[in-house]
Amino acid sequence: MTTQFFNLVHEEIQKMEALMRAQGDSSNPDLRAALELLLTAGGKRIRPTVTLLTGKMLGAPIDKLITLGAAVELLHTATLVHDDLIDGALLRRGSPTLNSQWSPSATVLTGDFIFSRSAKLAAETNSVELMKIFTQTLTTIVNGEITQLFSSRCQLNRENYYQRIYAKTASLFETSTRTAALLSPAGNQAIEEMRSYGYNIGMAFQIIDDILDLNGEQATLGKPVGSDLRQGIITLPVYFYTDNHPDDEVVGRLISGECLDAEQAEYLVNCVRHSSAISLAYDEAARYISKAQNVLDRQPDNPERHGLAQLANYIIERRL
Amino acid sequence: MTTQFFNLVHEEIQKMEALMRAQGDSSNPDLRAALELLLTAGGKRIRPTVTLLTGKMLGAPIDKLITLGAAVELLHTATLVHDDLIDGALLRRGSPTLNSQWSPSATVLTGDFIFSRSAKLAAETNSVELMKIFTQTLTTIVNGEITQLFSSRCQLNRENYYQRIYAKTASLFETSTRTAALLSPAGNQAIEEMRSYGYNIGMAFQIIDDILDLNGEQATLGKPVGSDLRQGIITLPVYFYTDNHPDDEVVGRLISGECLDAEQAEYLVNCVRHSSAISLAYDEAARYISKAQNVLDRQPDNPERHGLAQLANYIIERRL
Repeated sequence: MTTQFFNLVHEEIQKMEALMRAQGDSSNPDLRAALELLLTAGGKRIRPTVTLLTGKMLGAPIDKLITLGAAVELLHTATLVHDDLIDGALLRRGSPTLNSQWSPSATVLTGDFIFSRSAKLAAETNSVELMKIFTQTLTTIVNGEITQLFSSRCQLNRENYYQRIYAKTASLFETSTRTAALLSPAGNQAIEEMRSYGYNIGMAFQIIDDILDLNGEQATLGKPVGSDLRQGIITLPVYFYTDNHPDDEVVGRLISGECLDAEQAEYLVNCVRHSSAISLAYDEAARYISKAQNVLDRQPDNPERHGLAQLANYIIERRL
Repeated sequence: MTTQFFNLVHEEIQKMEALMRAQGDSSNPDLRAALELLLTAGGKRIRPTVTLLTGKMLGAPIDKLITLGAAVELLHTATLVHDDLIDGALLRRGSPTLNSQWSPSATVLTGDFIFSRSAKLAAETNSVELMKIFTQTLTTIVNGEITQLFSSRCQLNRENYYQRIYAKTASLFETSTRTAALLSPAGNQAIEEMRSYGYNIGMAFQIIDDILDLNGEQATLGKPVGSDLRQGIITLPVYFYTDNHPDDEVVGRLISGECLDAEQAEYLVNCVRHSSAISLAYDEAARYISKAQNVLDRQPDNPERHGLAQLANYIIERRL
């Protein structure tokens, strides 16, 4: 799997890391420590990488892209801090979550602080239009989380699935590319095309995540296989399986809107794992990636464009 | 007590209420219900009133002022939602808090949602400078809350007191007037003067709140008299009392950095209530109000200016 695209923005990502850390300066020392902890736990910085590659491809000013990348990654970080608190998650990427070490109060406020710094960085790009897109994305993400919190679980509703993965993941990927293009001299067509690239890789990213939840190994996932289904969250492979096995007794329970007990969930996870549903879901992710690749054909032919093509493939190859 | 100043912006406040409510449109129905509940519980809308009076006085466009007023009041509302959750408060303004009726998770996300709508409205004023001030204010408020959460209680440190009331209250008042002036054709001097007006009424507002906590009646306060001191939070009247009674045994405990038990706190609350410390703190609030009034002398002589003068007096007369 080629990950050379990371090298194209290595220097900018380093500067972005420093900028993110600097957001704790002149703040409470405990808060600074929390921010440091969160940023050290890392992550691949895939969203700012997408932002930087898109912006560089289209000739946007590098300093603004670094600021925007930090804003995007901090928005992502803040939502994870509140998410992990809500889910009571103890680990993320193998590191202890903030809520596993701090009080709920401190965790809520740290998330709020990171939101405020993210919005401040977005404002520093000096683009009102960018700010509007940015704040709308936060609304979309939070509204999606609330909908998930209040929605009845164990309901088969494919439209809800797509809305959920858009709100949860694709909306921020879409904003990562759309706003980067907005900072460049490129016109509306390129902005719309790169928005579409971000949307499509974002949808694929979440579908692959959902496949890995069913198809991965516990050791790699850091959580039990099939944890979505055990929580009553129906993901794409399960939809494909239920489409193709309407007569299965456990599928019948889902179709009639009933929740599964632990045994039934484990049974269904095993069925889905060993069925064609996995590759059908994979094919759907591949279709999103293919749409993203098509858009790139119309962009400037430079190393960053090739990097974005690699990145799209990287997202889907995470399966392997 | 004259409250005619509210009439000067009555129509705009009605439009602002509608705009705030509309922020829940096309969102999850439970979220819409929560927003409705929060907005119906009300409050005097003192911050947007200050915004509207300042902006109208200086000739800012009314539609933008309504948008800004809604942004300011929603920012305030969002911080209260998270605050009440953190404090475990069950009532605010005599109405049940959101956290008393909803799960912590739903309360966190509702606060996040309101933050996002507040930032979106701020962006709709189309002023990048306003956005920067706005996001910095959120940072200041949250950093202040975190500092209070982590700071050792029962410490006499007067500088911390002023920092705390600035972060908690004066920063948003300051932003309410500064940003309104920024949207007007007035120049930098008027912006700075109205920033100062907002700062000074904000400092006075919190000092009066702190006096009322000690000097009010439980029925009016809706909480036990002296609840700050019982929680180890030292407010201005207590500083004046300790200055003047260093030999009091309970004061001695505070001076040596010890916390008070319930009996000692009740004793001290009674001492402070019946001492000159109350009027000394009141005089200090009056000095802030007087600075705010001075600034008004240099503004355009119109009904809104007189309204702002009334409003400053109203803040200090809340004592009566």
